Amino acid sequence: MQKVSIAGKLTLFHEHWKPKIVGELNDSYVKLVKLKGEFVWHHHDNEDELFLVLKGTLTIRLKDGDVRLGEGEFVIVPKGVEHMPVAEEEVVVLLLEPKTTLNTGNLTNERTAEAEWI
Amino acid sequence: MQKVSIAGKLTLFHEHWKPKIVGELNDSYVKLVKLKGEFVWHHHDNEDELFLVLKGTLTIRLKDGDVRLGEGEFVIVPKGVEHMPVAEEEVVVLLLEPKTTLNTGNLTNERTAEAEWI
Repeated sequence: MQKVSIAGKLTLFHEHWKPKIVGELNDSYVKLVKLKGEFVWHHHDNEDELFLVLKGTLTIRLKDGDVRLGEGEFVIVPKGVEHMPVAEEEVVVLLLEPKTTLNTGNLTNERTAEAEWI
Repeated sequence: MQKVSIAGKLTLFHEHWKPKIVGELNDSYVKLVKLKGEFVWHHHDNEDELFLVLKGTLTIRLKDGDVRLGEGEFVIVPKGVEHMPVAEEEVVVLLLEPKTTLNTGNLTNERTAEAEWI
């Protein structure tokens, strides 16, 4: 059982939109991801997804409005809900989601990335 | 779908060892808890439990040594593992655990607390 330093893990990667796995519990992964720019509209058929902003400001576009998250704020996007993360400047996010979760949800395209352990 | 400010939620309670629910996703709750002093040795038969320190320093005593967590550090205690959280000074912790998780795990005693939504 090893403790994990979030700051330490964040020094290990710099690319955007490529979630990294830093922990697993029950059927879920804890991931870190750096975001910059716009993602794609998608949803997850079976997984609720938590976005906790660690640094910066994240907008999550939804069909009925935007949620804007600052540091220390989180939102849980329920399964089935279309969303598009947008980061005008770089944002650091902690994700919590079931192991089955694909970053692009119902889509497979050039933005699809298999999460790897760091 | 409402965003949650962790700092805002932390203003809503002051007691120690009484976890508060601030989010739910899949089969789990996100909880906040303030700790000070020693808890009791216990384990969770079926639930892995994540402790993320938001403020202060938390010691988690284990049968084979201690894990000492500072701000921005987390550990995942696997199901079945005996542990005892200890906080010399007040510590603020984010917990992630299945909804079935009781704070005292396999025990029911005067420290047992039903988590409530805030």
